[in-house]
Amino acid sequence: MLKIELAKSYGFCFGVKRAIKIAENSKNASTIGELIHNSLEIDRLKKNFNVKTLKDINELKDEKKAIIRTHGITKDGLANLKSRGIKIIDATCPFVTKPQQIVEKMSNEGYEIIFFGDINHPEVKGVMSYASTKVHVILDESELDNIRLASKVAVVSQTTKKIEKFMQIVNYLMQRVKEVRVFNTICNATLENQEAVRELSSRADVMIIIGGKNSSNTKQLYLISKKLCEDSYLVESGDEIEQIWFKDKKLCGISAGASTPDWIIEKVVDKINNLNSNI
Amino acid sequence: MLKIELAKSYGFCFGVKRAIKIAENSKNASTIGELIHNSLEIDRLKKNFNVKTLKDINELKDEKKAIIRTHGITKDGLANLKSRGIKIIDATCPFVTKPQQIVEKMSNEGYEIIFFGDINHPEVKGVMSYASTKVHVILDESELDNIRLASKVAVVSQTTKKIEKFMQIVNYLMQRVKEVRVFNTICNATLENQEAVRELSSRADVMIIIGGKNSSNTKQLYLISKKLCEDSYLVESGDEIEQIWFKDKKLCGISAGASTPDWIIEKVVDKINNLNSNI
Repeated sequence: MLKIELAKSYGFCFGVKRAIKIAENSKNASTIGELIHNSLEIDRLKKNFNVKTLKDINELKDEKKAIIRTHGITKDGLANLKSRGIKIIDATCPFVTKPQQIVEKMSNEGYEIIFFGDINHPEVKGVMSYASTKVHVILDESELDNIRLASKVAVVSQTTKKIEKFMQIVNYLMQRVKEVRVFNTICNATLENQEAVRELSSRADVMIIIGGKNSSNTKQLYLISKKLCEDSYLVESGDEIEQIWFKDKKLCGISAGASTPDWIIEKVVDKINNLNSNI
Repeated sequence: MLKIELAKSYGFCFGVKRAIKIAENSKNASTIGELIHNSLEIDRLKKNFNVKTLKDINELKDEKKAIIRTHGITKDGLANLKSRGIKIIDATCPFVTKPQQIVEKMSNEGYEIIFFGDINHPEVKGVMSYASTKVHVILDESELDNIRLASKVAVVSQTTKKIEKFMQIVNYLMQRVKEVRVFNTICNATLENQEAVRELSSRADVMIIIGGKNSSNTKQLYLISKKLCEDSYLVESGDEIEQIWFKDKKLCGISAGASTPDWIIEKVVDKINNLNSNI
């Protein structure tokens, strides 16, 4: 009898899963901007729960409930919603709320803020809006070369940035500034999925990785799995699954890329179960 | 007419120069441990100012005045002196007082301390004594591998350590700890002497670098100078100076290694002036 086991961490990250659950529980509400970066999911939420997506705060008219998306919102935007008496449903990822709080606190303590991130990203705009001291949003330390810095700075990162570059920025600052207060706000979701595949594929007979064939994080999961479990397969949906893969196997491990919704994963699991109950 | 110009920074560092001046103004006092790491200077202070050197606090008997050396003293040691009514003359290098204050403050704010330094060095013993929370004194980040760390730590360095290793330690901590509060307490005295030689030798016709021929920091100064000023000479004393070096020269630049006392430098300057007034 084949046993199916899901990796300890897979697919959508914690913040995205949480936001979807919040949206499902908020029928007829509107989100300010796309809830998450996944159009399939946004269509499903519209169809099944009548959760609409507004471009921005200006599109709000008769709405009584507004969902704040995973990226968060600016401080002013939030105040605007509140002043209009709109009920706020906060689906901001807790890993994004954290840098917002840090930036606000550090500004209040008089620290100049160095923010490692993309100035055009909605998450960064939201976090930055909580600063009352000077903020430098940078992608590379060289952008600070010609800038006079305060003697104490706090450094914060966009949640999806790479730690290696963050370290370079901190090293640069250590040489220029007396006190550097480093907050590692990088989220490890991608790394956690990889770590979980590593663990599961070392025990499984067969591994199914679900995700887009051109999704780089999915391919990464597949490569890790293949190293530790020879019988590893990368599929986009249940249609690709073949019965022969499971012959004489005892443990089938399953993981999925960061853009794979749970309902696709569930369909794959059902398919494997069906195939094996027919043996 | 030859003009002589001293580098903007040369020889003994700021803290050592300051301690010597304090000792010269404290006739008949005793220092707790060697005032600085230079026996020639310690002999001179004894001979000219009757400043004695005690091994440690236990050797104090009838003394009424105690000089705290550049490395500082432990908090308990200081309290002991005070309780005995001994007049304290503090020659602790201000760059050492700073990490003492930081460690005390960070401990009071609940941070665990990571101290980059040599646990046997008197400076480190002094600084550590100001901690009330846990302190980890390390020379390499790997020493922390099997140690559970608090979620917020403050990192401080011994003044004479290299920044490159300090950065490695901070990079390591960023991956393990949510908040890393970095205080760059490394003193740039050596680098400042190098920077000053670079500036002066780019303008001078002839450069004299004074210091031990086997002193690595002196040789470093000489090499920098030689690159920018072909006529650069490394001498241990005025005896080695030759008149021909200054023929048709307009600007003679002078620097000295970190272990060269001012009075040796003055003798060299006098010698150059004498040689050139005879032309």
